[in-house]
Amino acid sequence: MSDYDVVILGGGSGGYACALRASQLGLSVALIEKDKVGGTCLHRGCIPTKALLHAAEVADSARESEQFGVIAELAGIDMNGVNSYKDGVVDKLYKGLQGLIKAAKVDYIEGTGKLVAPTTVEVDGRRVTGKNVVLATGSYSKTIPGLDVDGVKVIASEHALRLDRVPKSAVILGGGVIGVEFASAWHSFGTEVTIVEALPRLVAAEDADCSKQVERTFRKRGIKFKTGKPFESVKHTDAGVTVTIAGGETIEAELLLVAVGRGPVTQGIGYEEQGVAMDRGFVLTDERLRTNVAGVFAVGDIVPGMQLAHRGFAQGIFVAEEIGGLNPKPIDEAGIPRVTYCEPEVASVGLTEEKAKEQYGADKIKTYNYNLGGNGKSQILKTQGFVKLVGVVDGPVVGVHMVGSRVGELIGEAQLIYNWEAFPSDVAQLVHMHPTQNEALGEAHLALAGKPLHAHA
Amino acid sequence: MSDYDVVILGGGSGGYACALRASQLGLSVALIEKDKVGGTCLHRGCIPTKALLHAAEVADSARESEQFGVIAELAGIDMNGVNSYKDGVVDKLYKGLQGLIKAAKVDYIEGTGKLVAPTTVEVDGRRVTGKNVVLATGSYSKTIPGLDVDGVKVIASEHALRLDRVPKSAVILGGGVIGVEFASAWHSFGTEVTIVEALPRLVAAEDADCSKQVERTFRKRGIKFKTGKPFESVKHTDAGVTVTIAGGETIEAELLLVAVGRGPVTQGIGYEEQGVAMDRGFVLTDERLRTNVAGVFAVGDIVPGMQLAHRGFAQGIFVAEEIGGLNPKPIDEAGIPRVTYCEPEVASVGLTEEKAKEQYGADKIKTYNYNLGGNGKSQILKTQGFVKLVGVVDGPVVGVHMVGSRVGELIGEAQLIYNWEAFPSDVAQLVHMHPTQNEALGEAHLALAGKPLHAHA
Repeated sequence: MSDYDVVILGGGSGGYACALRASQLGLSVALIEKDKVGGTCLHRGCIPTKALLHAAEVADSARESEQFGVIAELAGIDMNGVNSYKDGVVDKLYKGLQGLIKAAKVDYIEGTGKLVAPTTVEVDGRRVTGKNVVLATGSYSKTIPGLDVDGVKVIASEHALRLDRVPKSAVILGGGVIGVEFASAWHSFGTEVTIVEALPRLVAAEDADCSKQVERTFRKRGIKFKTGKPFESVKHTDAGVTVTIAGGETIEAELLLVAVGRGPVTQGIGYEEQGVAMDRGFVLTDERLRTNVAGVFAVGDIVPGMQLAHRGFAQGIFVAEEIGGLNPKPIDEAGIPRVTYCEPEVASVGLTEEKAKEQYGADKIKTYNYNLGGNGKSQILKTQGFVKLVGVVDGPVVGVHMVGSRVGELIGEAQLIYNWEAFPSDVAQLVHMHPTQNEALGEAHLALAGKPLHAHA
Repeated sequence: MSDYDVVILGGGSGGYACALRASQLGLSVALIEKDKVGGTCLHRGCIPTKALLHAAEVADSARESEQFGVIAELAGIDMNGVNSYKDGVVDKLYKGLQGLIKAAKVDYIEGTGKLVAPTTVEVDGRRVTGKNVVLATGSYSKTIPGLDVDGVKVIASEHALRLDRVPKSAVILGGGVIGVEFASAWHSFGTEVTIVEALPRLVAAEDADCSKQVERTFRKRGIKFKTGKPFESVKHTDAGVTVTIAGGETIEAELLLVAVGRGPVTQGIGYEEQGVAMDRGFVLTDERLRTNVAGVFAVGDIVPGMQLAHRGFAQGIFVAEEIGGLNPKPIDEAGIPRVTYCEPEVASVGLTEEKAKEQYGADKIKTYNYNLGGNGKSQILKTQGFVKLVGVVDGPVVGVHMVGSRVGELIGEAQLIYNWEAFPSDVAQLVHMHPTQNEALGEAHLALAGKPLHAHA
């Protein structure tokens, strides 16, 4: 006899979503978490960084107020104030989440769990058995071989979120999502930032046009970046650090933020011992998120793919419904929206132009770039960027890529378009609100459907 | 022989969209405009008011910066600066639009046109004939009988947009879209505002819950309003005006803004003489936008219904395609999105709860209100409000109603949901980006589909 229908190891986005949904379906659930429910996203990731980025937006808005006719002066950043705002947001959401878990009658077990049999987790000496076990242990900030993160001069994102001051200068190792978000926020706060990225472009996972636009705007903002430049070494100095990059160039800064991605938390907790198939630390699953061990599922950042909280939510819900016998439809990973919250924001769903051409053949793909210069609301915000559509000839839209202030919110519409396999004409015939930024999505579809309105064809 | 395939009387949103689309379809087009192409929306409506509202947002952001840890001081509003920002946005879009008209090879005829035969328009003595004529003469700021708008102390929105100062105080007659938008912007600029509305609630065309939330937030902001109070009279004083409302209460202010709606521009330009059927000044059409006179169409604010620029665009495109023989699908007016850009914003598409219950029967309608208190990004923005869904039991979502900062941009997704007749489960199964405000739409659909995630069920 098992203690529970479902035992979930890890209370982050994937784990707690699974717990809530399983409980709704009448399953008995144990949720095991060693730190705080909400995990990385709520406590050390999405939420606090977005609070930091909003404070940065407020600072930029004051700094640039004159161009809107508003007389305001930015006197500085009170980092304690920023932190207490940020912590206030986290605390409120944390309390709400704790309330949801309690109301759902999930057995919440605090402690470090370890898989000791295929469907048994041991927590502080107590053995908890489940008909099913869901591995949801999340991720940690990676570093690169030989680079020691000391949390003082060489820091990871979780340290960066707890800084009690605005650094005078910083080198950010990594021009991916986390790197450009911190670069953007710190620059707005007054830090002299240099991003070092080994790949040839910033936000390299995005469509190449998005990288180009982000780089153009970062250049204008005064955020320095060196792409195609692998990191070589760092030396501690009295004033901070000296970073050496490929070619021998050195950069002095107060600190080095290591933002080279996140690794799966899967070591020393029994996965390998219990025979769970793994690859480079990640837990392998099929499209129904089953591992090779019967009754053992995995969700979230430990499963190869995009490490995003909402992917974790979706996977957690999926597994709960799978266990509950609802036979849910597998998740299309390309249909999961992505937003990078730097200024300008980058938002995308579906395939990049490059990927689409690989998949369908270059002659089967058409694209349209709608410049936000023609979009009234974007002009009002004084932002630059575009909405780029990637469509199959005589077929659906298979990619939407956007850059510009606040375009992250447009991804809601874009993901419906992608996931519902809309043709450009399906969207073009619908009336978009004027003046909004989402109107640019409508205009792009009008243009791709061959009937541009506010667009040079 | 006609001079043109299509002669369009009026170069506002409806007229110019019709011209551009007709030209794309290979039709010969004359576009007649007495003032500036772009019309009310671009020069005296949507665009300049949204610029004003963005300046207001910048002012609020500086004023409230401390709660985000940003030290900034709002010293004041430079109304000349606001105006030159606003005019700069308008000018840029105006130039773009002129370029589009030119590139489209539309014959642009400057002058006041008059319908002198069913398919002939006379402009400054010149007769321009079309196989088809499209009436698109737009609207003007209405007043109420006995209330004289002098443009100085008693003003309309077009005067309000040209003010060279921030008024110390203002009474705004009308709590509809235009009224609450000016109230919101002026309050942010420092004006003491009182809205006077005869109807029992602000934004009375919206779902009652939206009115309640706007009123709650306006009260918190310190924007005064008196609902259910018809205007009685205004007297000029040395300092400005004294406004008397129902019950005898008087309000002193520097000026009175009359925002009681917009009337159709249809008098003295030959419509009635040529036998075009009209009702209280509006031009009557069928669902294909044909008037009773063969070959004569009407679009935009002169056609009974919502007076919105994007409705005009859609109607203009429709008529061009109708004339071009494409047999387009009639426009579902309930599927046209609406946004009121006050702080908090109000955005809606489809039916209000009340209308839906009338249409389907109260027992066939279910609703869900997702409070933005559970939405991370809204907490980061420190905004309050909700996403309310109105759904048919075992059927599609027929109304989406939202209130909160920046929710206007979420209407893009909402209108797809409405227009594609999505069931709550269709949206619920899709992964929304975390943390965004559009995620609240996802959460609301999860809840209405019976599987709430971050929501108390």
